[in-house]
Amino acid sequence: MHTVLTDCDQLWLNAQVAAHWGGVDASTDASSALVAMGVKQGRIALLAPMSELAAMALPAGAIDLAGAWVTPALIDCHTHAVFGGNRAQEWEMRLCGVPYAEIARQGGGILSTVRATRALNEADLLAASLPRVQALAAEGVGCIEIKSGYGLTLDDELKMLRVAHRLGELAQIDVSATLLAAHAVPPEYTGRADDYVSLICNDIIPAVAEAGLAEAVDVFCEHIAFTRAQAERLFVCACQHGLAVKGHMEQLSDLDGSALAAQYGAWSVDHVEFLSDAGIDALARSGTVAVLLPAAFYFLREKQLPPIAALRAAGVPMAVATDLNPGTSPFASIRLAMNMACVLFGLTPQQAFAGVTQHAARALGRATRLGRLAVGYEASFCVWQVQHPAELAYQMGVNPLRYRVWRGQQIAH
Amino acid sequence: MHTVLTDCDQLWLNAQVAAHWGGVDASTDASSALVAMGVKQGRIALLAPMSELAAMALPAGAIDLAGAWVTPALIDCHTHAVFGGNRAQEWEMRLCGVPYAEIARQGGGILSTVRATRALNEADLLAASLPRVQALAAEGVGCIEIKSGYGLTLDDELKMLRVAHRLGELAQIDVSATLLAAHAVPPEYTGRADDYVSLICNDIIPAVAEAGLAEAVDVFCEHIAFTRAQAERLFVCACQHGLAVKGHMEQLSDLDGSALAAQYGAWSVDHVEFLSDAGIDALARSGTVAVLLPAAFYFLREKQLPPIAALRAAGVPMAVATDLNPGTSPFASIRLAMNMACVLFGLTPQQAFAGVTQHAARALGRATRLGRLAVGYEASFCVWQVQHPAELAYQMGVNPLRYRVWRGQQIAH
Ligand SMILES: [Zn+2]
Ligand SMILES: [Zn+2]
Repeated sequence: MHTVLTDCDQLWLNAQVAAHWGGVDASTDASSALVAMGVKQGRIALLAPMSELAAMALPAGAIDLAGAWVTPALIDCHTHAVFGGNRAQEWEMRLCGVPYAEIARQGGGILSTVRATRALNEADLLAASLPRVQALAAEGVGCIEIKSGYGLTLDDELKMLRVAHRLGELAQIDVSATLLAAHAVPPEYTGRADDYVSLICNDIIPAVAEAGLAEAVDVFCEHIAFTRAQAERLFVCACQHGLAVKGHMEQLSDLDGSALAAQYGAWSVDHVEFLSDAGIDALARSGTVAVLLPAAFYFLREKQLPPIAALRAAGVPMAVATDLNPGTSPFASIRLAMNMACVLFGLTPQQAFAGVTQHAARALGRATRLGRLAVGYEASFCVWQVQHPAELAYQMGVNPLRYRVWRGQQIAH
Repeated sequence: MHTVLTDCDQLWLNAQVAAHWGGVDASTDASSALVAMGVKQGRIALLAPMSELAAMALPAGAIDLAGAWVTPALIDCHTHAVFGGNRAQEWEMRLCGVPYAEIARQGGGILSTVRATRALNEADLLAASLPRVQALAAEGVGCIEIKSGYGLTLDDELKMLRVAHRLGELAQIDVSATLLAAHAVPPEYTGRADDYVSLICNDIIPAVAEAGLAEAVDVFCEHIAFTRAQAERLFVCACQHGLAVKGHMEQLSDLDGSALAAQYGAWSVDHVEFLSDAGIDALARSGTVAVLLPAAFYFLREKQLPPIAALRAAGVPMAVATDLNPGTSPFASIRLAMNMACVLFGLTPQQAFAGVTQHAARALGRATRLGRLAVGYEASFCVWQVQHPAELAYQMGVNPLRYRVWRGQQIAH
């Protein structure tokens, strides 16, 4: 122990952690305890009750947290944070009673964001997206998934993915990029969705895999988007190129997409309001995470709740994410998503917290690196100004983050 | 015009304003226009289309906004921002399925906040409350109403009101303080609500009026709080002491409290989910504002919507506020309240905006001083980083405020 202690690059003392709040591995009987946490080369190298250190000489430069709460950094495992324009005026038209057909006739909907995103060069797309990622980072998010899907051509999808990675560098945050070329059928392929899927499989997935620009392939599987058969073509292709798979599944209807995704070992299926019992069984067997997106549920005024109790009973891990996007969830706040998961979906604050830490990490294939405070995990954690971590999901408006640590470094916001 | 121009203390040029967005009085046919705005001694002294200034020599030091949107500063006309403690763990218990009776037995509910607020001295109560008011100010709020109601003794109510005023100085924001001694029956008066109302009428209202610490008297009129008859005693007493009246009315049931309040010329009635047609008629006749509190509706998972369409048809002005409080609306965000007014109550973004500007000003007796950009009004306005003010109600997480002007001075956040 002593050797490890003096060997750490940085040492935090008197951090309050709780075994059942945030997946802490420090051995303790109490539900919360004061620990020392040491970091070496960007990873947690030491995690021990303060009582075990009492007799030792502590190295100079150790940071005394005086009982402040520490948790793993938050993870937003489902966003469309890179896009051009916004859809505030389309939303205003909807609230003013303009029928959806008329909004579509005037160029509204997802394709309006595709137009706006295609129109921006890489630097401008980066500048438009950065404030959103910075807002999440300032809340304590240390890892974010970002999907493509507003380019829908090889070049524009690659542009979006490059911007996603650059955002991570600028906001000092981990980025997990996902190829969502199958977000919508682009106008050039109207009525020829299968041809567009062929383009994705023949050109886009290979190019993205070759460039190492994405870790997973996603698909919007829905009557208004892509069929189950088209999703399967994409999953097969993704697997052939060594990419993980995930899907926008069962949001508006049950196409049995989750079971399909589970068959291909999906990291996650997302939305899942209309998920069936058979789908739940499939997820439980494959270990796939169900990602809840309560802010989109709220913004669209949906009525069908995801089957929370059944997912819980089946032991399916539930993550919570923002779904940040201009059409159905214009909310760059993971804490608001946590609050809505509690208020609208009935999760407890602790379940919502697990949903943005350990389960979110698993939804991004990072379960052994992020989302927990444990020796060997990346030193990505937050120091909070709260009396109890339940407050993270409870109070909005006031930011309780003192600071975030990323790869062992304190990040100023 | 030229004299006025050179006579201003400060001049903003090329501000984008819209006649129907924010109650701008600059004469223009277009729905939006670029104007010049001059401020003298903290008030708007000049508001004119840029075209009228084209030929004039502009004074040095004028600020060119280059087309940025300018609106009146936002107003949060219903908050309980001063309190000790928080109720996150009580909320967690509720979400974990602990019955309300058990939570109450363990000391939860409004009286737990009374205990925590009484326990703090003035400096600590100020320190606990300041981050909430600063969060609102940083969003563009230039005026906030703050209620007492967690003291429930003469001394503790006075303490809360003094803290409210001090918060205004520290956050550089106007404060309208309201006496809400009739928030709950304090434990010392259990079963003797009428005696407590006598204490309020005989001791607290006179002392508060004498000290000039509140502008209005509020009452929670509900089965679980005070009766209509008790509310009337309070209103009579308030009028006798020259204080305005307002009420928490028709939130959980219809006690016909709004009509009563209207009879006493109330500035506002707040919540009003269960407001009747007769109540709406009474408000329309008295010019009383209906204050919508969608965040409390959301947090409590209420089902009964306020009668928005009928209020609109009757011409009752509708304000929107946060209801910021630890038990039913732990949200220090006026923009989130605007968003919820749109998503949950069906207001348009423009109506939500009017609800946090001109109608909110009226709910605080400030309709001729705040909530509009017009000559003679206080220079309390915001400069935004948006393409359209509908975005203020639309996107959460990213703060679009460039800066706020208060009493003619730019405020840094
Ligand atoms: Zn999505
Ligand atoms: Zn209230």
